[in-house]
Amino acid sequence: MVLEQHAVAVRDGAIEQVLPAADAARKFAAYEFIELPDHVLIPGLVNAHTHAAMTLMRGLADDLPLMRWLEGHIWPAETRHLSPRFVLDGTALACAEMLRGGITCFNEMYFFPESALEAALEAGMRVALGLIVVDFPTAYASDPADYLRKGLALRDRSREQPLVSFCFAPHAPYTVSDATFRQIGTLAAELDLPVHLHVHETASEIERSLAEHGVRPLERLRRLGLLGPSLIAVHCVHIEQAEIDLLARHGCSVVHCPSSNLKLASGFAPVDSMLKSNINVALGTDGAASNNRLDLLNEMRTAALLAKAVARDAQALPAHAALHAATLGGARALGLGARVGSIEPGKRADLVAVALRGPELAPCYDPVSQLVYAAGREHVTHVWVDGELRVRDGDLQNRASSLDTRWQIWQNALESHADS
Amino acid sequence: MVLEQHAVAVRDGAIEQVLPAADAARKFAAYEFIELPDHVLIPGLVNAHTHAAMTLMRGLADDLPLMRWLEGHIWPAETRHLSPRFVLDGTALACAEMLRGGITCFNEMYFFPESALEAALEAGMRVALGLIVVDFPTAYASDPADYLRKGLALRDRSREQPLVSFCFAPHAPYTVSDATFRQIGTLAAELDLPVHLHVHETASEIERSLAEHGVRPLERLRRLGLLGPSLIAVHCVHIEQAEIDLLARHGCSVVHCPSSNLKLASGFAPVDSMLKSNINVALGTDGAASNNRLDLLNEMRTAALLAKAVARDAQALPAHAALHAATLGGARALGLGARVGSIEPGKRADLVAVALRGPELAPCYDPVSQLVYAAGREHVTHVWVDGELRVRDGDLQNRASSLDTRWQIWQNALESHADS
Repeated sequence: MVLEQHAVAVRDGAIEQVLPAADAARKFAAYEFIELPDHVLIPGLVNAHTHAAMTLMRGLADDLPLMRWLEGHIWPAETRHLSPRFVLDGTALACAEMLRGGITCFNEMYFFPESALEAALEAGMRVALGLIVVDFPTAYASDPADYLRKGLALRDRSREQPLVSFCFAPHAPYTVSDATFRQIGTLAAELDLPVHLHVHETASEIERSLAEHGVRPLERLRRLGLLGPSLIAVHCVHIEQAEIDLLARHGCSVVHCPSSNLKLASGFAPVDSMLKSNINVALGTDGAASNNRLDLLNEMRTAALLAKAVARDAQALPAHAALHAATLGGARALGLGARVGSIEPGKRADLVAVALRGPELAPCYDPVSQLVYAAGREHVTHVWVDGELRVRDGDLQNRASSLDTRWQIWQNALESHADS
Repeated sequence: MVLEQHAVAVRDGAIEQVLPAADAARKFAAYEFIELPDHVLIPGLVNAHTHAAMTLMRGLADDLPLMRWLEGHIWPAETRHLSPRFVLDGTALACAEMLRGGITCFNEMYFFPESALEAALEAGMRVALGLIVVDFPTAYASDPADYLRKGLALRDRSREQPLVSFCFAPHAPYTVSDATFRQIGTLAAELDLPVHLHVHETASEIERSLAEHGVRPLERLRRLGLLGPSLIAVHCVHIEQAEIDLLARHGCSVVHCPSSNLKLASGFAPVDSMLKSNINVALGTDGAASNNRLDLLNEMRTAALLAKAVARDAQALPAHAALHAATLGGARALGLGARVGSIEPGKRADLVAVALRGPELAPCYDPVSQLVYAAGREHVTHVWVDGELRVRDGDLQNRASSLDTRWQIWQNALESHADS
């Protein structure tokens, strides 16, 4: 729903009232006013799947086949450089990029989540922090029990943080065993946490599951009791209608990451079919190594365009549905639908102003259409998280002064590694 | 090829020399210097297919099926509003958008080309002006002979303009008769002009051709003698390998318009196969009614991402190939490959500087990859056409002061029409 000439009253970080601008001038005369005459005000964008610290590997090795990319570049770089400092600096860079692009909340999956948390708090962003689990050792943890112990300890220390929530983040069906999945299922039910994982991303993932488990990954997850409203199923590219129905029946959310699916040649997720089956669909950027932008305005556009050609229907994923997926769809997937994702009294004030001006955005017949199909993140002017102004006229309000040097050090380190 | 720390010396609108920056300071000490320390300098982008004046219908009727969109919105709006003034104002808006986004040359197909020419000259852009022909009457012309007469008269009047070239622009196989195509083929050979047309855009176009002509459109064009190095075949979405081979054998160019093909649900052009068959591929935005951005940086990214998923190969259409298509590929398609499209001594100085700075573009391992996958048109800072600075620090140097009011008048007119 588009309201024209309206105002949003914010108090103590919450949305107090949405009302005609003329009434607001009278009723809230004591409030500080920010006038945005050429703008649309939208809910803060929710990036429902990312690996924030991978900004440090943005463009490190593009245009390569998936396994050469992973085995020849990404994994060696991670093996050599992964550390709390790497995650802190990479996530700080990601937060700067995301905030400037109107993203107020991100669903994070990476190693050393305590460092990602530190960066998010420093930036003043809302974060759903993944308690990552894989079956192999990394610099972060040695085995599934160690990953879980570290993740849960972090949650115990940080659960009072107002902008922070947590998800279990078992990486993917091909990196997590049945036993670990069962344990996570039990813990997630006990603690009422979402479960965030990659699933049905590539054709080879499905083949491997059939060979190793005799069933496709979603069927395996069903047997393990993982399907339910708390499941955040990322990608779902190679998925049949029966599986879409299964996800719908269990109330699972799907996170669509169109740029990443294209860049890694994973394929085309049938988003139109998912929406028609009433699945809650969210949007994600994935990490900057496979996108290479943490830009949800761009994902909205890509998703809306792509869905039409995939469904052979120019009405598929219209602009309003893309905006819904990037806001309330994401919030619901993360279990935050009652707190954020829309501009409603009582919700936290995560808000983004986008200036619809300049020759690129003229004329304007439908502001939502303009936002999705014509605007870019460069048109974002103001961003509030929990009522706090984080971006004003395109400038970060609490930008870490050391940001440039922090990523520069990593660029030098990763380049020298690539050359060796 | 990426050269670091280099300078481009420009004199009388032409590129005089490309040399290390340190040498340039000595050798060209008398020249005006523009230092661009964080930038990449690329050839001006060539938008190889657009209908510029359709900016006035940007977002007028999105998310509709093709025929409802055309018959219910676009065609009625054109019938009611099409005029020289409409084309002048719409093209002026398009030129402002394109220049700011690093596009220095566009291949135009629309009615009243004399008005598009006026706008292009006013903006200082290079333009390949289509002499449009369709078999039905419009406000512009009454029948094919009238279209051709008007187009050729325009060419006769304007052929001395240094930034202007001409193409025949028979709209599409389904709007142009055999007789008209034959006549255009003869004239094009006589006058040595390219022939620019939509072809194999939709599945229904092919079906209709089979029903009416007994052959698919490209085979019909072959029989009519239209295939050759001067043919600019736009879209080529529904195309078989034998047809790709046919285009390759005849040296035709293909203009890929990925955003438009997705938005109208036309389908997926097999660009990787075309490149592997050594077809010259260019990129186009199509009109703003079906995109809705005249943004070739965005088309490069969309093309590069999409080609990978279509070819199921993450190596398809790498960043360097996307940049080639958007520059030299476009120039060659228009028959301008000897004048523009690359940064080489002797070519005209159509140049674009893109600033690779800010958290969105850090770190940078490969400037071309960064340009295609991470940068946006908002990072374009300087644009030269024929050696003249048209954009400086993102601002148009000769922006028509009346631009805003000009499109506003049309927005009001088109909105009132949509409501009626």
